Amino acid sequence: MPVVQVSLLSGRSKEQKSAMADEITETVHKHSGAPKDVITVIFQDVGTDSWAAGGTLFEDR
Amino acid sequence: MPVVQVSLLSGRSKEQKSAMADEITETVHKHSGAPKDVITVIFQDVGTDSWAAGGTLFEDR
Amino acid sequence: MPVVQVSLLSGRSKEQKSAMADEITETVHKHSGAPKDVITVIFQDVGTDSWAAGGTLFEDR
Amino acid sequence: MPVVQVSLLSGRSKEQKSAMADEITETVHKHSGAPKDVITVIFQDVGTDSWAAGGTLFEDR
Amino acid sequence: MPVVQVSLLSGRSKEQKSAMADEITETVHKHSGAPKDVITVIFQDVGTDSWAAGGTLFEDR
Amino acid sequence: MPVVQVSLLSGRSKEQKSAMADEITETVHKHSGAPKDVITVIFQDVGTDSWAAGGTLFEDR
Repeated sequence: MPVVQVSLLSGRSKEQKSAMADEITETVHKHSGAPKDVITVIFQDVGTDSWAAGGTLFEDR
Repeated sequence: MPVVQVSLLSGRSKEQKSAMADEITETVHKHSGAPKDVITVIFQDVGTDSWAAGGTLFEDR
Repeated sequence: MPVVQVSLLSGRSKEQKSAMADEITETVHKHSGAPKDVITVIFQDVGTDSWAAGGTLFEDR
Repeated sequence: MPVVQVSLLSGRSKEQKSAMADEITETVHKHSGAPKDVITVIFQDVGTDSWAAGGTLFEDR
Repeated sequence: MPVVQVSLLSGRSKEQKSAMADEITETVHKHSGAPKDVITVIFQDVGTDSWAAGGTLFEDR
Repeated sequence: MPVVQVSLLSGRSKEQKSAMADEITETVHKHSGAPKDVITVIFQDVGTDSWAAGGTLFEDR
């Protein structure tokens, strides 16, 4: 029952998430042997005021 | 200081979360021995466009 | 497809985890309406050198 | 590539998150040796109806 | 700076993880637009005594 | 009840984690207003065969 959590900047469309979920599920299935229907993919949308790299929020770049 | 994170499809009511938090805290307390007041439960609401099983978003089923 | 992640201090037995998984699944099923077989519970064991409350590691208390 | 996820009650301002991201990045850099620009900090805002301590949601206290 | 956390049953080889990391990074890059070198993939190995589906630990199936 | 999860490459010493836990708790307390004793810091050690950046495991660099 693999679980994949993908944290991305907010603003990805449903189509983008759909394509990622499909392909990630395929690769996890192919390499781990888990059946596709027990693989879960969850997207966590993160705002630019809630994500920092190098100590600086994206909103302040 | 056990921490329990519950990822659920969006749309559960406050009453549903309240009941789950109460019962999950009770069972973790009973079986782990941790005092109830140091047990944290966090709910993560996940939209139907952000959750996939078998490679397909819930919104597309 | 609810996913529940339980972070606990290392050292809980298989029996303790089994009882918690059973009861947590039951309560999430009862209050969220999700079928039991799509509910996943994952335990994350955390050592006393990797868990701090109030700024102090458990190992140093 | 250290990743730090900070779960906080909703309502912290951008300035508060900015200050925390800056200082957390600094301390992780100083003590782990990782370069600052590969350190990621993500904030997860949690509503008062989605966070429980001692089995009771914050909203019900 | 997308972050992908993959929770899998323990026992996947380095080669399996390497292939998954490569392909997941490729698909996240392709569909989110993030440069490949800022995409992080973390694997969390979960033992059969720490993973339950339908309320039953994998070890007890 | 802020919860901070820090994912780091395995191999940090107890002293390093202790210093990070102390300083992270201080900064979260200072900027969020939460009392120090309700702030939890959890370290997740990640092996070089379980962490990838740019699609390549650390072990293969």
